[in-house]
Amino acid sequence: MAAIYNRVALIGLGLIASSMAHAMRAEGLAAEIVGYARSAETRATVRELGFCDRVTDTAAEAVAGADLVVLAVPVGAMGALAEEIAPHLAPGAMVTDVGSVKQAVIAAVVPHIPAGVHFIAGHPLAGTEHSGPRSGFATLFRNRWWLLTPAEDADPVALARLRALCEGMGANVDVMDAPHHDLVLAVTSHTPHLIAYTMVGVADDLRRVTDSEVIRYSAAGFRDFTRIAASDPTMWRDVFLTNKEATLDILGRFTEELFALQRAIRLGDGDHLHKYFTRTRAIRRGIIEAGQDTSAPDFGRSGTTAAPGA
Amino acid sequence: MAAIYNRVALIGLGLIASSMAHAMRAEGLAAEIVGYARSAETRATVRELGFCDRVTDTAAEAVAGADLVVLAVPVGAMGALAEEIAPHLAPGAMVTDVGSVKQAVIAAVVPHIPAGVHFIAGHPLAGTEHSGPRSGFATLFRNRWWLLTPAEDADPVALARLRALCEGMGANVDVMDAPHHDLVLAVTSHTPHLIAYTMVGVADDLRRVTDSEVIRYSAAGFRDFTRIAASDPTMWRDVFLTNKEATLDILGRFTEELFALQRAIRLGDGDHLHKYFTRTRAIRRGIIEAGQDTSAPDFGRSGTTAAPGA
Ligand SMILES: NC(=O)c1ccc[n+]([C@@H]2O[C@H](COP(=O)([O-])OP(=O)(O)OC[C@H]3O[C@@H](n4cnc5c(N)ncnc54)[C@H](OP(=O)(O)O)[C@@H]3O)[C@@H](O)[C@H]2O)c1
Ligand SMILES: NC(=O)c1ccc[n+]([C@@H]2O[C@H](COP(=O)([O-])OP(=O)(O)OC[C@H]3O[C@@H](n4cnc5c(N)ncnc54)[C@H](OP(=O)(O)O)[C@@H]3O)[C@@H](O)[C@H]2O)c1
Repeated sequence: MAAIYNRVALIGLGLIASSMAHAMRAEGLAAEIVGYARSAETRATVRELGFCDRVTDTAAEAVAGADLVVLAVPVGAMGALAEEIAPHLAPGAMVTDVGSVKQAVIAAVVPHIPAGVHFIAGHPLAGTEHSGPRSGFATLFRNRWWLLTPAEDADPVALARLRALCEGMGANVDVMDAPHHDLVLAVTSHTPHLIAYTMVGVADDLRRVTDSEVIRYSAAGFRDFTRIAASDPTMWRDVFLTNKEATLDILGRFTEELFALQRAIRLGDGDHLHKYFTRTRAIRRGIIEAGQDTSAPDFGRSGTTAAPGA
Repeated sequence: MAAIYNRVALIGLGLIASSMAHAMRAEGLAAEIVGYARSAETRATVRELGFCDRVTDTAAEAVAGADLVVLAVPVGAMGALAEEIAPHLAPGAMVTDVGSVKQAVIAAVVPHIPAGVHFIAGHPLAGTEHSGPRSGFATLFRNRWWLLTPAEDADPVALARLRALCEGMGANVDVMDAPHHDLVLAVTSHTPHLIAYTMVGVADDLRRVTDSEVIRYSAAGFRDFTRIAASDPTMWRDVFLTNKEATLDILGRFTEELFALQRAIRLGDGDHLHKYFTRTRAIRRGIIEAGQDTSAPDFGRSGTTAAPGA
């Protein structure tokens, strides 16, 4: 494919940025990839791994002359980073981010964007529980969604170019407004993560069930929770602090419904439980039909043949 | 391998029983496999699939002359089934079950077991979200735990034979008492399932987030929940009704911890969140080290390369 951007600056060189570098290289989407990370250690690692053409020692150097700048740091760090790079951005450049929350990032970044520079916030719905520059791989975004939340007055040509980059890395792009993004993600990702963290924490606390037993017999629902709950603590702290309202809203509904089910268990109301569980099955079928997962009995996992049991 | 039992009767012919039949056949563990299921439809399907040597039209016929009888129906149906087959059990036969709850099954079944017949309750920690006779496969139990909860006065020779069968199907066997089993499973499986059902129910309820969006953007934590929440409603209703105490106990702790995290979000207490999320990471590492899952960045899933994102 022809390069879509001439020089891409990746600021933050963790899972997402390194996966972008691998994907852009594999598809020839950027003529040059420049990287910067906060710590000398990460910069040294990336120089050794070689997925950037150059690694600079300051964010300012990295963004100089770049026609695309990608902010790929935790959500809470975006504002300070935008302030730092702002004076060094090239006229006409596009700035985007990959943060998991959109309203807070837009509020923190936009005030620093100089006139003549474009900013369009984005969020790839792809990740693993691993982090850091060694965890990236070229196919991370393939067949995953990349949500873009441009302002109403965003430049259509600049948007089309950014969309082409995301699609070039294998993603499907959808455009929506930021508040809606944050609500949808609170439902599909943020609240589920908080719940998984909580359940794993409860298991860890429980002295009557020894640690080794929880681990030994985890092949049953709980295992999926531990995978979710292994994600980066800083990233997730920032997600909850910055998508506070939507998360608290969904959590409120969650506890309401949980109490109703809890009450049904206490009262022995089997009909209530059976109806509820029957309803939730349909959503799963929808996901399989939408091609977001496989219905193979081993859940498409190679290596292990079985999964949730009871 | 030499046959461990001469005639095995499988009562209930769903996921677990059909997987047992496939596994016993593959390893030559039973000289003859006889099956019975409640509905004529399931019996016809099994006759067509051919994984039993014979399918009988009554449970009584199936257990006649069997030296192993496996109760593989929902937990709530075990007692009535035991009562029905009791007069037809061969002297010296072993009766076991595969139910996900143990104290309630033991309480329902034991009173019907005639003198001279052994009963040892069991539970394979293996399953998928699929059910019915077509969903079974020979490797379901491979490298999975099979927990046995014998009474204190259980016959050691009969126990050793049952253990050999489970191991012959590829499982690792552990012996524990029934109350402990029910508590461990409440933590590692039953409560996580209830939580997953609840979260999927909340998403389904939410009219501001359209169904199609929840499904479209589900590649992020939530997807794992929907898989769990697709499990058989009858089986899970029975699990919660019969492992009531332990589930309510763990649920109580869960909501306590969830409220603490919710409060931290509301107050913007990032330290609390970060500490909590750091702690839960360790349990995940333990699971990977215990060989219960893979640390591959695609979670060992073939076909899809990415999973939880934010
Ligand atoms: N992981 C996912 O599942 C996922 C999915 C979609 C979107 N996202 C979003 O993508 C962004 C990056 O996530 P990631 O998974 O790539 O993270 P990661 O692997 O942990 O990498 C984070 C990078 O940000 C840098 N960084 C951390 N704190 C910083 C700070 N206070 N100031 C400046 N730089 C800082 C780190 O620098 P050092 O290496 O020098 O410490 C590292 O290079 C986050 O906003 C996250 O919400 C993540
Ligand atoms: N699935 C799992 O993940 C898993 C894991 C470990 C243990 N278990 C336990 O294994 C047992 C069987 O589960 P499964 O997954 O094999 O279930 P399944 O695929 O749904 O099959 C259940 C079987 O039980 C029969 N049955 C249902 N209700 C009955 C009733 N009231 N009276 C008599 N027979 C009845 C069904 O007969 P028809 O086909 O004629 O309706 C069917 O043959 C349950 O106790 C469950 O707790 C399940």
